[in-house]
Amino acid sequence: MALIVQKYGGTSVASPERIKNVARRVASWQAKGHQVVVVVSAMSGETNRLISLAKEMQAVPDPRELDVIASTGEQVTIGLLSMALMNLGVKARSYTGGQVRILTDSAFNKARIVSIDDASIRRDLDGGSVVVVAGFQGVDENGNITTLGRGGSDTSAVAIATALQADECQIYTDVDGVYTTDPRIVPEARRLEKITFEEMMEMASLGSKVLQIRSVEFAGKYKVKLRVLSSLEDLGREGTGTLITTEDDIMMEQPTISGIAFNRDEAKLTVLGVPDRPGIAYQILGPVADANIDVDMIIQNVGHDGTTDFSFTVPRGEFARTTAILEQIRGHIGARQITGDNKIAKVSVVGVGMRSHVGIASKMFRTLAEEGINIQMISTSEIKISVVIDEKYLELAVRILHKAFDLDHAPA
Amino acid sequence: MALIVQKYGGTSVASPERIKNVARRVASWQAKGHQVVVVVSAMSGETNRLISLAKEMQAVPDPRELDVIASTGEQVTIGLLSMALMNLGVKARSYTGGQVRILTDSAFNKARIVSIDDASIRRDLDGGSVVVVAGFQGVDENGNITTLGRGGSDTSAVAIATALQADECQIYTDVDGVYTTDPRIVPEARRLEKITFEEMMEMASLGSKVLQIRSVEFAGKYKVKLRVLSSLEDLGREGTGTLITTEDDIMMEQPTISGIAFNRDEAKLTVLGVPDRPGIAYQILGPVADANIDVDMIIQNVGHDGTTDFSFTVPRGEFARTTAILEQIRGHIGARQITGDNKIAKVSVVGVGMRSHVGIASKMFRTLAEEGINIQMISTSEIKISVVIDEKYLELAVRILHKAFDLDHAPA
Repeated sequence: MALIVQKYGGTSVASPERIKNVARRVASWQAKGHQVVVVVSAMSGETNRLISLAKEMQAVPDPRELDVIASTGEQVTIGLLSMALMNLGVKARSYTGGQVRILTDSAFNKARIVSIDDASIRRDLDGGSVVVVAGFQGVDENGNITTLGRGGSDTSAVAIATALQADECQIYTDVDGVYTTDPRIVPEARRLEKITFEEMMEMASLGSKVLQIRSVEFAGKYKVKLRVLSSLEDLGREGTGTLITTEDDIMMEQPTISGIAFNRDEAKLTVLGVPDRPGIAYQILGPVADANIDVDMIIQNVGHDGTTDFSFTVPRGEFARTTAILEQIRGHIGARQITGDNKIAKVSVVGVGMRSHVGIASKMFRTLAEEGINIQMISTSEIKISVVIDEKYLELAVRILHKAFDLDHAPA
Repeated sequence: MALIVQKYGGTSVASPERIKNVARRVASWQAKGHQVVVVVSAMSGETNRLISLAKEMQAVPDPRELDVIASTGEQVTIGLLSMALMNLGVKARSYTGGQVRILTDSAFNKARIVSIDDASIRRDLDGGSVVVVAGFQGVDENGNITTLGRGGSDTSAVAIATALQADECQIYTDVDGVYTTDPRIVPEARRLEKITFEEMMEMASLGSKVLQIRSVEFAGKYKVKLRVLSSLEDLGREGTGTLITTEDDIMMEQPTISGIAFNRDEAKLTVLGVPDRPGIAYQILGPVADANIDVDMIIQNVGHDGTTDFSFTVPRGEFARTTAILEQIRGHIGARQITGDNKIAKVSVVGVGMRSHVGIASKMFRTLAEEGINIQMISTSEIKISVVIDEKYLELAVRILHKAFDLDHAPA
């Protein structure tokens, strides 16, 4: 018998019929003898509806009152799912974030969990109930309702699994696991049985939007096993999804590379010929950060003749605004020229195995060169290598890298 | 400076535009120097939507979970109204029933208020805020969300006014006060400046659906002045509504009769020739009560020859079911015959003044007789006289009684 925390997102509970499906799935886990805590999101579309109502009242809705309103979406779902479970003869009991109680700080709209009182949940589980908890929400020490920010239900689930020392935290989505790359681009892409927290974070941040990066980070920190599963598969014919766990849990025969991630939504900017002196990076990126523009890759090569070139990438939608900011500060920082390109893509190979294997980078660069794909920027971390290339080569690059690193076939 | 509790119902907050209107009205009261607590219902239609969702999960929704779901309707409104107030530059803060805290018993769907903690509300009022409280809901001593039953927001408002010892509890509706009778039937009907709690209860229970009877009872018990006002009148051109208060507050020149109430939604049943022995009333009404059918008037006249006739009225929709129940027990109770009529109406004259005036009844009966209207049943209380007549005479009866008791003209 295991203690399992399951999380179902907005599309999984989008209609009364889908909520009933979730209830059947939950009931089947309980019938196998497991204790089950279910964390749910608002019905798909509901949070947007509530936020739209709020914006009709105030152009910038008051953060405290916005949380009062937005938190009702999940509150409706917990009641509905509990009823659907009872209708199947399963004992069930719902909890809002405040009822659990999930204590957060007072940062409305983007609160962070401070602690979780597991007493009530444990009592209900021991009494044979399924416990249904509203995701995305909590309460601060003054009793104010808070929310964790959009999509925060994954984080709620991981936090509850941590507090309960659950055996597994299952995140149900509309895909049946994490893939070596996007199957729409590479039909041979395979579902991974296991992946490490670190790899998953790189995959997630690079555009594989299966899990929220914050919840993966949280799970890794507390070593809560995460499993990505599909809520669309027929009961009795479910797959095993992808387990996200620590490196220790993954066999030594793990291949060097786990997957190929990519991101089309970037643009690059280069500041040419800036004086090569301390503080120049801050002078360039400070105004960009002040404008709330996220910066992804940042590259500065060694300078020569007292000047250097500085490049970085931003979300494509911020390209024009970032260019304008740079033009404004160009004279002040003494740069020669600003250039940019919003027709780029980033491709990354990810894998914990690359730590102990030299040659991954050269294999990647050679593979791209053989197809005549020029590399515009390179950035590396311990477990990933990212390159920026012309957008038009994206699909080709992903396909040839997937094949070159032998991801088309399951490891022997 | 007064402390005022205002309650706005579902139609007053049915849309973002109407919520903004409510905000302007609330702001105008605060601008006059008053402290204002606002109690709101769910946006019109929202509670029904939520209950429908629940019924898709369970034919008979679990009472605890139904309250978890239904209470979100008011929670959305408090957030929206607080934002609308802030948008007008008015400090505002919302509270759910649990946050106040409005402590109730654990009778889900029909909970009763046990106590109200006024500390947070007072602190916010003293800090210059308008306090916006979700009506219809509370929390039991175990932290479970409860609701007071449909329309319970009036009761919430009165209870909060009692706890705060407010100067007045204003109930905003879509009518501008309590009338001597329905103006659709008698164009000369007048708005009453004042009416006693007792009269209002008789008027409400007799079909003038302006206020919930439970809230009037509650207000009378704790002597909280209630005022019925329209939320549709233009700001700056509002009327004074109708004040519902104790008899002591009403001038001695108060006319004998305050109003004519009526109810079309009744049917009468008569059990003829039952043995005139102790317990017979219980034997007849016990099975009716067991079937959850509300009984209104009950009449049993003195018997003769060892038998008597027993009559009572029920809601018209229950006529067939009640008839079937009586036919079933007829043999057992030894009754001769069951008769009934669902084409009846009840007309009542109401007024505290009648206590000290003989002759009201005879004036009422003479007035009806002069128009050839036959009286089928009569029932009286200290402050009202009700008669059952053929439904087709209803409008005529109301008009002639309104005139006979001189309600067409304001008291001198």
